[in-house]
Amino acid sequence: MSRPPYVSFSVRPRGRRPGSADIVDAVLAERARGGLPAGSRLAPVRVLEQQLGISKNTVQVAYDELVARGVLETREREGVFVADAPDAPAVPTGLEPPPLPALRPAPPMTGGGPHRDGISLSVIFIDPDLLPTEKLAECARSVLRQPGFANLYDAQGYRPLREAIAARLNARAIACDPDEVIITTGSQQALDIVARALEVRRIGIETPVYAYARLLFESLGLAITPLRLDPFAGIDLDAWDRQLAAGRPGLVYAISSFHNPTGYSYASHELAGLLELAARHRFAILEDDWGSDMLSGSEYRPMLRMLGGGNVLYVNSFTKKVLPSLRIGYLVADRALVPSLVAMKRLSTLGGAWLGEAILAEFLERGYYDGHVETMQRATDARYRACLAALEELMPDGVRWTTPGGGPSLWLELPRAVSMPALVAALATRKVWIDPTTAAFCGEPHLHGLRIGYAYPKEPELRRGLEILAEEIRRRLP
Amino acid sequence: MSRPPYVSFSVRPRGRRPGSADIVDAVLAERARGGLPAGSRLAPVRVLEQQLGISKNTVQVAYDELVARGVLETREREGVFVADAPDAPAVPTGLEPPPLPALRPAPPMTGGGPHRDGISLSVIFIDPDLLPTEKLAECARSVLRQPGFANLYDAQGYRPLREAIAARLNARAIACDPDEVIITTGSQQALDIVARALEVRRIGIETPVYAYARLLFESLGLAITPLRLDPFAGIDLDAWDRQLAAGRPGLVYAISSFHNPTGYSYASHELAGLLELAARHRFAILEDDWGSDMLSGSEYRPMLRMLGGGNVLYVNSFTKKVLPSLRIGYLVADRALVPSLVAMKRLSTLGGAWLGEAILAEFLERGYYDGHVETMQRATDARYRACLAALEELMPDGVRWTTPGGGPSLWLELPRAVSMPALVAALATRKVWIDPTTAAFCGEPHLHGLRIGYAYPKEPELRRGLEILAEEIRRRLP
Repeated sequence: MSRPPYVSFSVRPRGRRPGSADIVDAVLAERARGGLPAGSRLAPVRVLEQQLGISKNTVQVAYDELVARGVLETREREGVFVADAPDAPAVPTGLEPPPLPALRPAPPMTGGGPHRDGISLSVIFIDPDLLPTEKLAECARSVLRQPGFANLYDAQGYRPLREAIAARLNARAIACDPDEVIITTGSQQALDIVARALEVRRIGIETPVYAYARLLFESLGLAITPLRLDPFAGIDLDAWDRQLAAGRPGLVYAISSFHNPTGYSYASHELAGLLELAARHRFAILEDDWGSDMLSGSEYRPMLRMLGGGNVLYVNSFTKKVLPSLRIGYLVADRALVPSLVAMKRLSTLGGAWLGEAILAEFLERGYYDGHVETMQRATDARYRACLAALEELMPDGVRWTTPGGGPSLWLELPRAVSMPALVAALATRKVWIDPTTAAFCGEPHLHGLRIGYAYPKEPELRRGLEILAEEIRRRLP
Repeated sequence: MSRPPYVSFSVRPRGRRPGSADIVDAVLAERARGGLPAGSRLAPVRVLEQQLGISKNTVQVAYDELVARGVLETREREGVFVADAPDAPAVPTGLEPPPLPALRPAPPMTGGGPHRDGISLSVIFIDPDLLPTEKLAECARSVLRQPGFANLYDAQGYRPLREAIAARLNARAIACDPDEVIITTGSQQALDIVARALEVRRIGIETPVYAYARLLFESLGLAITPLRLDPFAGIDLDAWDRQLAAGRPGLVYAISSFHNPTGYSYASHELAGLLELAARHRFAILEDDWGSDMLSGSEYRPMLRMLGGGNVLYVNSFTKKVLPSLRIGYLVADRALVPSLVAMKRLSTLGGAWLGEAILAEFLERGYYDGHVETMQRATDARYRACLAALEELMPDGVRWTTPGGGPSLWLELPRAVSMPALVAALATRKVWIDPTTAAFCGEPHLHGLRIGYAYPKEPELRRGLEILAEEIRRRLP
């Protein structure tokens, strides 16, 4: 039931307001240019009347004249059409479609989402049953009833939310003013606007690393200095020193607490060491603290932003902790940088979805967030311990894992004898889904394993998945 | 009341699960590396117990031993601290902060938002009193009650919303499948992901044009071929032909209906002409249809996407029509392009705010949108006619304006004798705010005027603003 469009012509009035003669001229001119092929439909009188702000009569007089001249014809109950007159210019035959644009090849996509059936063992989300949707609905209702709310947005982000975030960070010994907070569409947009606003050509990143960070930086044309991270051995600061001295990146992106995908947290001397390297090699630091609030005791974790002060750019997100579909993250940056960063955010999305920001602000304001974090941590702590116990019981010798302390995931390291592609394929036939996150590595992976997500599946499901995983690993050992 | 962070050390178990000796070793090793300055605080027993998945007792035994060795000390009700032992390495003195990153200069920001007091004459939003917040609240409640909703998002966008959009476009004779729709954070993100995914170095854009489009393309390093648009004279297709032949852009971005900021709509021969140029000069087309649904009869407007077929990339947005704070736009593209475009969206924001997408889908599904559009159009049509009547009555000779037919804004063209900066300043002293949108032009503006937004202020307020504007214009005429 598609409605054919009208033909369109521009009326150029001689005086201030168009008269019938102007409309007649406009139709004749458009027809002479081939814009009104026979049989095409004109806007009805009421539409033209509305557009030009003139009386219905003026339009009708013009159409009547054009009908009298044989240029237009009226069809009962259908409207006004261009007549098939002998002096009409040739109807343009089917227009050739424009070419499709040439696009760059799509970067590889990485997994991490749940599968519809079977057991998803690498999901880094929190079980939706642990998320506070009822309370969010309450907040949404209240927000949408605030008069005057609807139409406004501030490109930097909803101010009450920025205030609530600054207050929470200050309580964690991360000095921060609401004017230094920029709300983003998840932490991904925070990385995007920083990377786009940068006047640097090279960035240092851990390997492995959150894959979409690496893919983003590469897509923006930044050269990469990979900084090898082995969660079982810790950071080799001397090796980093050499690489940073050679590459001289302008920025280092670091996930210093609950590193994704390994679950590693920097030791104190590693935090201090990276800051010392930053001062010596003159690179800035962008710290991604995605894991905080998911881990018990994370309010006491030491961060680069605490030790290094306000110059450290800091990223965090509510995505996994409250409701993934809100997609709210934030960036904290020195006030001197804020105008450039907000300008980049404007260019990328203008503002964010303020509605969600206001709902989250209300959620924080009412104290719901603190209660929710406590409940969620208790539940994920229990799942984490159950996961550790199951791994210890089920996994053969030679399998190792990290102990991040809670949150959604840990890294499981396998003996090299186990072929990862074969393992993934064998598990898929049994509907157990794992994600070896190869996209997380710069170059050849120096680790040989996968991410285990324990916060998404229920305990019996996780246990069953780990049993199958352990079986398939054993089968591949010499 | 900020809480000081703990110091952090990595435990590397000899066996499968860490024992007391592993914890002792870890603390000693961290201290030897200077990571545990005297007086710093260690994680309490319960935190370490949780993290390592071991018994409280194991941790306590380790801490006891370290206290006995004089490395740690316990302080009543405060916790466990590093002792000030004579053999401890020098405490690292205050770390030098890392440098701030070098950022590119911020692009200029353009206006368009309402001022807090006085009369905002150039706002392109719809009066919030005309927006359906109560019904959206109803939809939000219903969405948040859907079990299993919370945790999922699809980077391409919430499927029921994509289906509803495709159905609406098909009804407007714009052939479209839900798989060809990508939901974006406003139309701005649609432009961003297209521009980032492009394998072209040059883009053609109208001048004037939606300013954030031009600024975005420039920030991504695209060269610009400006295509002059005079809403009073129409498009000089021969001039465009010469410019496109010389510049050879890979893409032309066009706002063919209700052009922003002029309100101009392409005549039929101009639509056909641009498509003919695209086929001849081999450029792709990105059409921005932001104005549809705001204008009465816009469902019948001819579009490049209708005449040129599925190769034309098409952008639209619900931002202004439903609720600006939802920030939901969309992009329609040939299926072959979708993977690259979705990949770019992932890199920029991963997904969008699904919550808002689901609320909007529900709003469409229930038929609320059609009713809302009808009510809103009736109201903005009335304001548009009142604006035209007021302009005709109040404006001196030599002032001209476009007749877009409704929506939020028209272009008011002034005699060159009126200095724009002086006019802006004089109006500001009377608390009347206008936006000459100079950022909308590539190079020296060939128009001399401003955008009048009539959908935001109430009629008496608009009338008062236009009276003051007319006075200040007259005062500047010879």
